[in-house]
Amino acid sequence: MTSTTSGATGLPANTTRQDGRAVNELRPISITRGWSRQAEGSALIEFGNTRVLCTASFTEGVPRWLKGEGTGWVTAEYAMLPRATNTRSARESVKGKIGGRTHEISRLIGRSLRAVIDLKALGENTIVLDCDVLEADGGTRTASITGAYVALAEAIAWAKGQKIMPASSQPLKDSVAAVSVGIIDGTPMLDLPYVEDVRAETDMNVVVTGSGDFVEVQGTAEGAPFDRAELDSLLDLAVEGTAELARIQNETLAGEQ
Amino acid sequence: MTSTTSGATGLPANTTRQDGRAVNELRPISITRGWSRQAEGSALIEFGNTRVLCTASFTEGVPRWLKGEGTGWVTAEYAMLPRATNTRSARESVKGKIGGRTHEISRLIGRSLRAVIDLKALGENTIVLDCDVLEADGGTRTASITGAYVALAEAIAWAKGQKIMPASSQPLKDSVAAVSVGIIDGTPMLDLPYVEDVRAETDMNVVVTGSGDFVEVQGTAEGAPFDRAELDSLLDLAVEGTAELARIQNETLAGEQ
Amino acid sequence: MTSTTSGATGLPANTTRQDGRAVNELRPISITRGWSRQAEGSALIEFGNTRVLCTASFTEGVPRWLKGEGTGWVTAEYAMLPRATNTRSARESVKGKIGGRTHEISRLIGRSLRAVIDLKALGENTIVLDCDVLEADGGTRTASITGAYVALAEAIAWAKGQKIMPASSQPLKDSVAAVSVGIIDGTPMLDLPYVEDVRAETDMNVVVTGSGDFVEVQGTAEGAPFDRAELDSLLDLAVEGTAELARIQNETLAGEQ
Amino acid sequence: MTSTTSGATGLPANTTRQDGRAVNELRPISITRGWSRQAEGSALIEFGNTRVLCTASFTEGVPRWLKGEGTGWVTAEYAMLPRATNTRSARESVKGKIGGRTHEISRLIGRSLRAVIDLKALGENTIVLDCDVLEADGGTRTASITGAYVALAEAIAWAKGQKIMPASSQPLKDSVAAVSVGIIDGTPMLDLPYVEDVRAETDMNVVVTGSGDFVEVQGTAEGAPFDRAELDSLLDLAVEGTAELARIQNETLAGEQ
Amino acid sequence: MTSTTSGATGLPANTTRQDGRAVNELRPISITRGWSRQAEGSALIEFGNTRVLCTASFTEGVPRWLKGEGTGWVTAEYAMLPRATNTRSARESVKGKIGGRTHEISRLIGRSLRAVIDLKALGENTIVLDCDVLEADGGTRTASITGAYVALAEAIAWAKGQKIMPASSQPLKDSVAAVSVGIIDGTPMLDLPYVEDVRAETDMNVVVTGSGDFVEVQGTAEGAPFDRAELDSLLDLAVEGTAELARIQNETLAGEQ
Amino acid sequence: MTSTTSGATGLPANTTRQDGRAVNELRPISITRGWSRQAEGSALIEFGNTRVLCTASFTEGVPRWLKGEGTGWVTAEYAMLPRATNTRSARESVKGKIGGRTHEISRLIGRSLRAVIDLKALGENTIVLDCDVLEADGGTRTASITGAYVALAEAIAWAKGQKIMPASSQPLKDSVAAVSVGIIDGTPMLDLPYVEDVRAETDMNVVVTGSGDFVEVQGTAEGAPFDRAELDSLLDLAVEGTAELARIQNETLAGEQ
Repeated sequence: MTSTTSGATGLPANTTRQDGRAVNELRPISITRGWSRQAEGSALIEFGNTRVLCTASFTEGVPRWLKGEGTGWVTAEYAMLPRATNTRSARESVKGKIGGRTHEISRLIGRSLRAVIDLKALGENTIVLDCDVLEADGGTRTASITGAYVALAEAIAWAKGQKIMPASSQPLKDSVAAVSVGIIDGTPMLDLPYVEDVRAETDMNVVVTGSGDFVEVQGTAEGAPFDRAELDSLLDLAVEGTAELARIQNETLAGEQ
Repeated sequence: MTSTTSGATGLPANTTRQDGRAVNELRPISITRGWSRQAEGSALIEFGNTRVLCTASFTEGVPRWLKGEGTGWVTAEYAMLPRATNTRSARESVKGKIGGRTHEISRLIGRSLRAVIDLKALGENTIVLDCDVLEADGGTRTASITGAYVALAEAIAWAKGQKIMPASSQPLKDSVAAVSVGIIDGTPMLDLPYVEDVRAETDMNVVVTGSGDFVEVQGTAEGAPFDRAELDSLLDLAVEGTAELARIQNETLAGEQ
Repeated sequence: MTSTTSGATGLPANTTRQDGRAVNELRPISITRGWSRQAEGSALIEFGNTRVLCTASFTEGVPRWLKGEGTGWVTAEYAMLPRATNTRSARESVKGKIGGRTHEISRLIGRSLRAVIDLKALGENTIVLDCDVLEADGGTRTASITGAYVALAEAIAWAKGQKIMPASSQPLKDSVAAVSVGIIDGTPMLDLPYVEDVRAETDMNVVVTGSGDFVEVQGTAEGAPFDRAELDSLLDLAVEGTAELARIQNETLAGEQ
Repeated sequence: MTSTTSGATGLPANTTRQDGRAVNELRPISITRGWSRQAEGSALIEFGNTRVLCTASFTEGVPRWLKGEGTGWVTAEYAMLPRATNTRSARESVKGKIGGRTHEISRLIGRSLRAVIDLKALGENTIVLDCDVLEADGGTRTASITGAYVALAEAIAWAKGQKIMPASSQPLKDSVAAVSVGIIDGTPMLDLPYVEDVRAETDMNVVVTGSGDFVEVQGTAEGAPFDRAELDSLLDLAVEGTAELARIQNETLAGEQ
Repeated sequence: MTSTTSGATGLPANTTRQDGRAVNELRPISITRGWSRQAEGSALIEFGNTRVLCTASFTEGVPRWLKGEGTGWVTAEYAMLPRATNTRSARESVKGKIGGRTHEISRLIGRSLRAVIDLKALGENTIVLDCDVLEADGGTRTASITGAYVALAEAIAWAKGQKIMPASSQPLKDSVAAVSVGIIDGTPMLDLPYVEDVRAETDMNVVVTGSGDFVEVQGTAEGAPFDRAELDSLLDLAVEGTAELARIQNETLAGEQ
Repeated sequence: MTSTTSGATGLPANTTRQDGRAVNELRPISITRGWSRQAEGSALIEFGNTRVLCTASFTEGVPRWLKGEGTGWVTAEYAMLPRATNTRSARESVKGKIGGRTHEISRLIGRSLRAVIDLKALGENTIVLDCDVLEADGGTRTASITGAYVALAEAIAWAKGQKIMPASSQPLKDSVAAVSVGIIDGTPMLDLPYVEDVRAETDMNVVVTGSGDFVEVQGTAEGAPFDRAELDSLLDLAVEGTAELARIQNETLAGEQ
């Protein structure tokens, strides 16, 4: 297992935050490749105290509705352990149904990864990304996307190693990473832990490719509506943060497993 | 019932669209207030061939978890009739569970309306907005938000008329409307019908207050990731379109029922 | 869209009813053909303040258990919007299961329509009737059956127009309509709105073909059991009412869409 | 346990039936009171090869929505064992939901028994009737109603014996029994076993009080619609059959347990 | 129907039990073969006041996951009627899910019967055992296993009679029976009724073949943990009790149906 | 976090196993206390490649049915991540129901821990143990019990530290650990990984207190039934293995967190 860790982006800024970070500074990021011995690809990713286990399950063949289209499929499922949070939540399996938030995040992760996959180049193969939050302290969906990309890249490398996929095929068009940004007491900030998240007037999750283009922009006014200038400064922070995450992803994948 | 209809925004633009509209032109919009004789507030809203029945159910009291907080609650549920679309879909009640898309849209509508409501001023009352899509031709979630605002305003007027709420209370801080925008063949366009929606490289739903601030920005790269300039032009179109929708909402509410 | 409306059957009777109708008089009936632009057949039907959207979805092929039998299939699903009634009900999709009443009515509608369909003549095609109650003021199941027949007839005409079915085939053996009757304060009455329905000692739903034969007779003693003479007078009223409904159905279908 | 059995009604008629019965003859009927040692009331009822275990569970108190109304509640649940029928059916508990037919019959049984109960006289007590079909050979719903009445009467006697209810209170206003009738090859017949039921053009279930009034009349044209004369002859048969069932019920309840 | 009944094992022991039995004495056991006229095999089994209807449904073919393996399948489902117990329980079908206890017992019954079946000799046929508890007074799972064996043996005999299975094939390798044992006030006892079961410090269910080998041993310390000596004495009792049950099973199956 | 690791029990035996262990040797065992920063108690436990995260959630108060009894409650839930195993399984939350195996194991863990808890001494407090299998290689239920005990002990220490529980109260009566044993090719072996588990003729899970008494004995003949001598040798191995596990548990809890 290779573990890549990066504490600060090193960018100057007046610190105004409880954990001492600059407003444009990520929490300590750690990605441990190959954490699971069962999955074709896996990564344990940490954004500060948020800890998500991402596995990629590679199977030959595609769902029935895609059969014979000469194209692959990538999908994702997100879930939280019942005690990932400060107070215990009932399991969705026990409640007998999946909540709206879980559905929403699973769909977001799936779309984000499909944005950087060439499904034709993947061939008639399916990759399922499971993102299980072991500990939650804000930013679980962005950590999930960022970690799932590493697991996905591992699974593709595995399939090439197994000769299931030709070594020359290039299903990954780019890398993808995500980060949360928000406005707290009027100040835009990067990568919010739980204590900041609950206080944010505006909360935005941004998914960005390694080349710096947007895959998803999801901004929500939790308190007061936000204006164009605020939106712009949040997008700036997010682009900066995801660039650093892309660097860490690459470093992790470059290390030997 | 007062029905307010507005065909075109009248803005000049080179038409490139199947239905002959300019890229910055809304579809014909129609809002019929008081369509339902049962609900405290209601509106049948049409964005072209998309037709949504929005009802507002006003009840005194709040959910258990809000009791005694001196604050009200506004929530929303979205659904589609099985044959709202071109081919029939199975009912979610028959499947025994709500799909991810339905959950996601219900949550979006609820958040959008809460953004313009002063829950303290609402008092310990609950308003549930039901948005049932009778016919779907793209933009059902944005039509739902836009129509639900009218139903909400009607329900509040009703409560004042019934003396359930003092005439002086002002729970509505602003109006709210939403529109979809997208990039098709490289061109940003406003208010996409189904045929455009499926071809869009990027698809964005934007929720804007009457004063022009953002409540939600949800942009998704369906095809290629988008850059900052594209994002900016989409936001411009959305602000223009929602301003027109706000005008129609006001006109509808100003008419007598 | 052709809309056929008929207020009164014109039959003399001493009025004893809150809405001024004679005991053997239907509420104002309105049927709007082709209300939905998506479905192969549709009708918005109104029995007074009860308003039901009926759509017919025509698909080639039959369910697996009928394959190769050389016969078609017709089935129906009934549902109410949450705020169709005076107080809001929870959605069955949210509760995760279909209630007994919904099941019962869906089955009744399906049986009623199959009674006038020659499934062999339909060929290996399936028609699903969806009856969604937009507003409920008593008699929703009888309005559903009456409207669904119009949607069904439209869908069959559509299939002939599309050459999916030979112009000479006659899958419709007869028309079918339904009405509620009941005994209130000892007096048998036709077509009960909600205020009468809750007070009825006996409540009966009767489904009758265009030729005047019975398809379903469902009488229930809500208060006191009823004797044979009461049963007979209720059946007389129902036969009279459904004859008028059959006339309106024919007129609607004769009109151009 | 007292077991009352009656083979034939002794009425003359030309036999046309597979099992040698006259058209107006019931199958052998057997009611065994007190079959269950756990329930406050119970009866194992047999209509030929149809065998249903009916139990009545008496509990003090009423459901929340009836609290403080000074009235009791009677309800029923019907179910079939998976191998009650000739081929095994999946359990509804395994499927995770109750089917439409089960719902419909449970509601019918509950309504039928409430028709002969004075809920005020019952006091704030609840009786749940469970009708579990151990073997099914047609007429399971009518056997259930007929047997449930005996279990209900036993439970009320038990409550009086336990001084939970004053000996003078008279919650039972009448007895109630039910039978199926149908038209087979043009001939109206009483009490259809499965082989006749599947061939019936019209099938009717009739619930009648001990005094001979109707509680429910549910007639369905399975094949061809039926006319008024056929309806009348079916009702005649049903009244005759339920009178005999009432006699057997009374005899059973008069016997010592 | 042949009914075999055995009251006491006739073994000497000092009686310490409420019902007067010796500690190593079974309750009165009764097995009625062929109780159901619908199933290929069936038995109504009674252990004192515990009464379970066991049916065996024989179908040709196997579940999809076993197709083409040249082997059969045997599985079981256990359930209790809502009023099998002293107070009524909600139906699992109404709750929409199967409880843990039901699952656990169904699996135990299935495993126990598969232990004495040669699935190869069964051929590509499936037998489903349904064990429905009509009355429960302790030991329902052990009565189910013991009765299900009889139903299983009947179904196999039926299949041979029908020439579905060659007369020479021997799918039954042995018989199987089960009994509960427990320690009450420090004394090991055989075959616990409900009143003893709730007081037991240790409770064990033991499944034993006709030749006296163990198929399942499930011991649970309900109160204090148990030592090796206690475990040994419980196993001795269980072996003794199941030997007697095996004798009764054989006698039942030897009788004519 | 204190991590206690023990590779081999050091007991002599002829090795016959794929991983080189002696038949009476445990796999490498590792317990990491305090792995989760959110829960009141937690342990990441490893039995070879089996990895389970156990958390203990302490809440004041008890479930409704225990209120006012002056006693606490301990319960457990077990689950597997979808890719804990070699091929991915569908999530139970997605399937909408909990499987029989999950139910069975959750109940086993709960019973095992309650066997060593004095619920009176716990006071009106509830502890929920969640055992989530991150990687599965056989023995997940026994690892869960063994790890859950450590999390439970931590949570009780936490509650004393927080003064929620008096320092003098002794809710833990003993420690508890569990191990699997089985017979493979006729040889009894300790602590089976997946490859051995699938080949075992007999499989037994044994739960033993720190003092060496039995809490649960669950033996199942997967292949051939087993005799008393085999049962005895399996119990000997299990007692030996759980004694070693108890030693590791104590060492872990003695270390500082």
